[in-house]
Amino acid sequence: MTIRSADNQKLKTIRKLRQKHWREKLGLFAAEGEDLVAAAERAGWEPEFVLRAGRDVEPGLLSEVSALGSGSRAIGVYSPRWSEPGGRLMVWLHAVADPGNVGTILRSAHALCDGPVILGPECADPYSPKAVRASMGSVFARPPARAAFEELPGLRIALDARAGEDVRALSLTQQVAVCAGAERRGLPEAALAQADAVARIPLRPDGPESLNVAMAATVALYELARRMAAHA
Amino acid sequence: MTIRSADNQKLKTIRKLRQKHWREKLGLFAAEGEDLVAAAERAGWEPEFVLRAGRDVEPGLLSEVSALGSGSRAIGVYSPRWSEPGGRLMVWLHAVADPGNVGTILRSAHALCDGPVILGPECADPYSPKAVRASMGSVFARPPARAAFEELPGLRIALDARAGEDVRALSLTQQVAVCAGAERRGLPEAALAQADAVARIPLRPDGPESLNVAMAATVALYELARRMAAHA
Repeated sequence: MTIRSADNQKLKTIRKLRQKHWREKLGLFAAEGEDLVAAAERAGWEPEFVLRAGRDVEPGLLSEVSALGSGSRAIGVYSPRWSEPGGRLMVWLHAVADPGNVGTILRSAHALCDGPVILGPECADPYSPKAVRASMGSVFARPPARAAFEELPGLRIALDARAGEDVRALSLTQQVAVCAGAERRGLPEAALAQADAVARIPLRPDGPESLNVAMAATVALYELARRMAAHA
Repeated sequence: MTIRSADNQKLKTIRKLRQKHWREKLGLFAAEGEDLVAAAERAGWEPEFVLRAGRDVEPGLLSEVSALGSGSRAIGVYSPRWSEPGGRLMVWLHAVADPGNVGTILRSAHALCDGPVILGPECADPYSPKAVRASMGSVFARPPARAAFEELPGLRIALDARAGEDVRALSLTQQVAVCAGAERRGLPEAALAQADAVARIPLRPDGPESLNVAMAATVALYELARRMAAHA
């Protein structure tokens, strides 16, 4: 039966899931767009429910509950999943508060390394609408993990904008967690002090202070994945 | 004299500059935030005017005209500038419609290569509030250029998500323009056909179809800058 009223319970649920406290309370999140719903299905995620415009719901009503305002043709609702840290190469984030950056890093890690993105304190919710969208489905294929810096397995390589060893000079044969911090602030002092190495991506001396955190994490994963493959 | 009325002409101008047709009509754009106003000053840009909260204008009134809604303490208004294509390594974008991606690529290019970002058709306005913010000031330090694919100098390397040579296999000693296309669609067929080489960033076979365009452009610039330096 096609939903024709904005008072419908499923539509109300989707609207609530824009807010983090509702996502936590209900233990659910929404993924917007046919491509994301398809990515969830490919990854074997059972939806709580899926609403498709024109089939399950009037298109206008679905648009109204969209958090991304892009006229989604489908919205799926799922329970979040969490991985454990692991793999040969993973990435740990500290205080990356922008959901677009978190989602983009989920996608890059899925493309470039075998381990998950591990969220430290103060990171954006990877199951927020913007993060799920930016992940382009990678959040389903490889769910994020959560851990404190002290709990990370393997060698901990702290990325710094302008300090430490050139990332190309690292010689790595073991399990590695690349650690990246917030825009401007970078990693906390404690993480820099406890890391097994501090590394930087070589930047032009006349350029900006740093790369965007998603760019830095992606370039580091690209470089380290290559270096580790060479030693495999 | 501190501005105390929302009817003030400067505040009205800033509000208009959220819209592209007003930016074009007035030949102006706004940069929000003390760090961006400082970046403009460092790069020698003369502002049309700058409003600082508490000094030139009541803080609440400045917040009201902010396009980014982040409680900016300063907003500067400037005339856009455009570079010419050039340098040893530059990047050309086709239909990159997300202003955050365009701004982030401005920042990455400034950090990694000596040439400008060159905007082809259908790209987001690099002087929109989101693009200026994402550039973190690089739009002032190295203004973008505009050109059609056919006008690009040097070797044209077309990035493709999953086709072409491994970007690590390219041997480059000449001037290069890295060409990147829109999310999903990639570069148009004509560009792929006319390019001097098609190259891909090596991605895991079990990963996503592609990287985000800003990630792909950044990794390609990182890799090619290294390869060109090795041949310098």
